[in-house]
Amino acid sequence: MASREEKKRQTRTSLMDAALMLVGKGNNFSSISLREVAKNAGVVPTSFYRHFSDMEELGLNLLDDLGLILRRVMRATRQHDVVKNGGPAEGFIRGSVEVYVDFVCAHRNHFYFMCQCRTGGTPALRTALRNELKYFANELVLDIRNVSMLPEVDSQDVEMISQLIVATMSEITIDILDQGKVNPAIQQELTENMVRKLRLIWLGARRWKSS
Amino acid sequence: MASREEKKRQTRTSLMDAALMLVGKGNNFSSISLREVAKNAGVVPTSFYRHFSDMEELGLNLLDDLGLILRRVMRATRQHDVVKNGGPAEGFIRGSVEVYVDFVCAHRNHFYFMCQCRTGGTPALRTALRNELKYFANELVLDIRNVSMLPEVDSQDVEMISQLIVATMSEITIDILDQGKVNPAIQQELTENMVRKLRLIWLGARRWKSS
Repeated sequence: MASREEKKRQTRTSLMDAALMLVGKGNNFSSISLREVAKNAGVVPTSFYRHFSDMEELGLNLLDDLGLILRRVMRATRQHDVVKNGGPAEGFIRGSVEVYVDFVCAHRNHFYFMCQCRTGGTPALRTALRNELKYFANELVLDIRNVSMLPEVDSQDVEMISQLIVATMSEITIDILDQGKVNPAIQQELTENMVRKLRLIWLGARRWKSS
Repeated sequence: MASREEKKRQTRTSLMDAALMLVGKGNNFSSISLREVAKNAGVVPTSFYRHFSDMEELGLNLLDDLGLILRRVMRATRQHDVVKNGGPAEGFIRGSVEVYVDFVCAHRNHFYFMCQCRTGGTPALRTALRNELKYFANELVLDIRNVSMLPEVDSQDVEMISQLIVATMSEITIDILDQGKVNPAIQQELTENMVRKLRLIWLGARRWKSS
């Protein structure tokens, strides 16, 4: 039999899963009620408060999960050959995009929630997501520094370039999600489009001179 | 005395203004009820239906307005010197960014609504906004073609570059809006950051070879 602690954890997970499921069905997080979440998780509304003070706190916990997913994206991309002739190997850009697209498809509801929080959601949720994406961009800065790419670009500008890359990747996310059922041809087209954009950013970055 | 037609138009405008005002106050459009909008416009809920079939139709009309604002942004940027030495004049990029930032500040609520629709909102609203932004990107393609910039880049790639520019500009929109009260120092910093990103994209574009 599950221990008291174990049961508590299960209920907490059910509540978070219920919220994600409702987001995945096309509801905006900000219009989902605590009552609906509790109902879908199979618990009474008062039980919700034993886990989260309100829907915003539940949302912040979902963003923590998303942060872990993004860290796994970073680790998975590092398995590719990063550098070739002083720039990222062609295979690196494509490989990274494919890793990202796979993660988006495998965690659709988390990424739907991410899209909603980027521009909607409460200020607290928006700030929390902004910090997760900043963390992601900073990791990218470290990667670029570690392999001595862009030696002529100062730190502030490497950061700007990383932001541009992260924005381009998150831009395409809603297009991937909007496909509904995965259509390999469209997915391939979106991947190609993103690869070309990142290659262009990279071309610019290699010519960039920090003032 | 206002004619019947005139009064009808006034009520319609009041309903749209009420919805925008609620968005500007931090509500997500998808969680605003028709009843609230009617109340804030000072009309009875049944009167709403004489103007819009539902909230989505009201939203689509707000996006039409946004489309007109974006067209005015385009026209205003064209008053700057566009080309110098085969690329966009430094002043053109900065001038365009400043025009855009001014429009965002002057139409805060419309741009809040734009941000919400980019990644949230119903599929119909998302598609309508995507089409407005596509129109904006296509105008940019024509501008680039008209002044014979990027002669070596094929149409598909000019489109990709325009998308990248539009995405970068819309990316910064929420940061501008999140300032709340306008802070000139932060606004200046956001403008500089956007100018640098667009310059980098442009550097890449000039080196781009269509395959």
